[in-house]
Amino acid sequence: MILIIELFDRKLEVKIMYTSHFKMNEQEVIDYLKAKQLFFTAQENKLIAKEIGDGNMNYVYRVTDQGSGRSVIVKQADKYTRSSRKIGQKRNKIEFELLRFEAEKCPDMVPQIFHYDEIMTCIVMEDLKAYQNMRFALMEEKSFPFFSQKIVEFIIKTIVSTMDSFVGPMFKRKQVQKYTNVDACDITERLVLTNPYREKYAQAPIEEVNLPYLYNHFQMDQQLLLEAAKLKYKFKNETQALLHGDLHSGSIFINQTGMKIIDPEFACYAPIGYDIGNVIANLFFAHIRSYVLNPGSEQSKYFRQWIENTVMGIITDFTKKFLLYFQENVTDAMEKSQDYRQWLLHLILEDTAGYAGLEINRRIIGIAKVKDIESIQDKNQKALAERILLMLGRNLIVNRTQIKAAENYTAALAEACALAEREMK
Amino acid sequence: MILIIELFDRKLEVKIMYTSHFKMNEQEVIDYLKAKQLFFTAQENKLIAKEIGDGNMNYVYRVTDQGSGRSVIVKQADKYTRSSRKIGQKRNKIEFELLRFEAEKCPDMVPQIFHYDEIMTCIVMEDLKAYQNMRFALMEEKSFPFFSQKIVEFIIKTIVSTMDSFVGPMFKRKQVQKYTNVDACDITERLVLTNPYREKYAQAPIEEVNLPYLYNHFQMDQQLLLEAAKLKYKFKNETQALLHGDLHSGSIFINQTGMKIIDPEFACYAPIGYDIGNVIANLFFAHIRSYVLNPGSEQSKYFRQWIENTVMGIITDFTKKFLLYFQENVTDAMEKSQDYRQWLLHLILEDTAGYAGLEINRRIIGIAKVKDIESIQDKNQKALAERILLMLGRNLIVNRTQIKAAENYTAALAEACALAEREMK
Repeated sequence: MILIIELFDRKLEVKIMYTSHFKMNEQEVIDYLKAKQLFFTAQENKLIAKEIGDGNMNYVYRVTDQGSGRSVIVKQADKYTRSSRKIGQKRNKIEFELLRFEAEKCPDMVPQIFHYDEIMTCIVMEDLKAYQNMRFALMEEKSFPFFSQKIVEFIIKTIVSTMDSFVGPMFKRKQVQKYTNVDACDITERLVLTNPYREKYAQAPIEEVNLPYLYNHFQMDQQLLLEAAKLKYKFKNETQALLHGDLHSGSIFINQTGMKIIDPEFACYAPIGYDIGNVIANLFFAHIRSYVLNPGSEQSKYFRQWIENTVMGIITDFTKKFLLYFQENVTDAMEKSQDYRQWLLHLILEDTAGYAGLEINRRIIGIAKVKDIESIQDKNQKALAERILLMLGRNLIVNRTQIKAAENYTAALAEACALAEREMK
Repeated sequence: MILIIELFDRKLEVKIMYTSHFKMNEQEVIDYLKAKQLFFTAQENKLIAKEIGDGNMNYVYRVTDQGSGRSVIVKQADKYTRSSRKIGQKRNKIEFELLRFEAEKCPDMVPQIFHYDEIMTCIVMEDLKAYQNMRFALMEEKSFPFFSQKIVEFIIKTIVSTMDSFVGPMFKRKQVQKYTNVDACDITERLVLTNPYREKYAQAPIEEVNLPYLYNHFQMDQQLLLEAAKLKYKFKNETQALLHGDLHSGSIFINQTGMKIIDPEFACYAPIGYDIGNVIANLFFAHIRSYVLNPGSEQSKYFRQWIENTVMGIITDFTKKFLLYFQENVTDAMEKSQDYRQWLLHLILEDTAGYAGLEINRRIIGIAKVKDIESIQDKNQKALAERILLMLGRNLIVNRTQIKAAENYTAALAEACALAEREMK
């Protein structure tokens, strides 16, 4: 916008920037940071920007000063996804609000936020270059002994703590209203909870050898379809807690001393098990990748054992911390009994198994794949990985009321491996 | 507000009315209707107003023209309840929106709305003087053979139809946001779902002979408290459909040819069984009143048989119409299976029994009593009615997963009568 101001006999042109939204390119992101005097000092004036986003939803720029080497991330939400689908930008505000909330609860586990711009719908935040994306770290078979404890701490402090048992139902209702994330939930409901179960839908097909299984067994399995529909009902209708909403290994940055969790733009009120199930499912992708690529190697065995221990650790640790947190923080007299919190724990654990299964299925037969499996070169190995995971996913969904102890997960995994190997011989 | 306008050399005083909210008295309601030229013609100028509200929440005026005899209702929500508790006025907007929505779906079953004023938070609507309040009609042991069919029609068309299976989850999420009714839900959560289960809470005590049962059995019953807490969880966390929210016999006006449903100011998204359970519980109050007052009379027997048939009719008819409505209108491919709609029906029927039990309990030991029971003069008869109802309420809550067929209700009723009679002999 250009404002013309007449001052005595002179005309002044004043450029008022960033008063309406536009999608920035690399140069415009540099201009933006300079105009707003954000992050970089006046001395840091050799800025270069590079678009590094790999998701479909947003544009992510790393801006680095070539002199000092200091860098920052600018994440912008446009009115269109990168695949040109029109989309509301409210998720960006929700992402910022949630990052701020998470920073209060777990300051060491989220990136530092330097600036939020509601008009430009962009967030300027810490560059996590000291960390590695956890999906890629897991593909390199790195293990992180602290992971299960840390992720449970994050889940308790930023997710469980938002239940109405702790904040009161009046405040919770207002929060549900505030965090209504229509477009993001629509994506989850279509891509995760619906499309993989629609006959012949699978958009990015799996290995040919698995197609008969997919079409004639999996998508014809009435028990599986019914149980998946029940879990979809819960996601659509149960405002249990404020979720991260997309808590997979690609949303986690990690190194040997800590981790940072990003991308809460899918945040909404839904069942807690959705988030925990996502974490567990994505650990299994790395496990099965290693299993089909190199089952005999010592490194793979060690890595897979660590994954299994981590999944078990998440369930055990969540159980312990949830019960304790509930006991210490519940405000409602009727909810103080041990029976009540055990009942609620079991609901959450059932959901965890069910949503882990849904996440596994949608990453194998849905449109949004995971690199862990997609990058397996050998067709037979990839087909085996797919089959194991579909069998595991089904098992977790259909038997979720029985899957409440840590060891049930490793048993389900072993069973799926054995069954798939036998079928594919 | 007075505006002073200078025109040439004259000063004009212009009175701008109703630009900010105030609570109207009887005369001010007449002035309001005249100033706004609402409902009455210029010839109808002998208006008298009378406050006829009997609830705690709002002021309700009947304004009649003494010449023509025509009358209208003005219902105003103040910033305070009649017991001087500060309260938000959003429920008034929600009431208007819901009445408008219900009028689209069931035009013959809601009062006609003539005007809504968002500033004055008042609704001008049809006077239902051709109808009788159903609570009082039931206390006179009048029966209405069409009632079960009509109320199920209302529930299907205005409540079930708002589920995301029919309107789509995106639209539903926006509606949940719009109809977030924080203050009204807070009242339900405290008065219906909490206070009756708090030890020694009961504010308007029951007959003395029942106090030991209440304190030493009922409020010490861990199974009852746990199951009530689970139903409270569902009310707080499940956005199944847009409820009326207060569907008791006092919210229904009825005559031998039809009925009109009023007062949806507690409307919110919650489990459908909450509304159906309320209808059933309030039928039981009339039944037990008749049973303790006059068990042997033919009229009472006929009336009680009609109530039992009506409760059974509601369950049977709801089951039939729900399954048919679902089959014909579901939009989501995953939800089209017979198994899915049977599963959902059973959830709703369980909730119905459970919330019927909660409504019974809160009307006996909570602060908001019902005239059906409160007006029983004989202390022994009243005590028996209370005991039967508390036993029935407990049974419906604790055994709700088993109470899905119509005849389960009459069996539970008979059992509670027999048990209470034996205990109180």
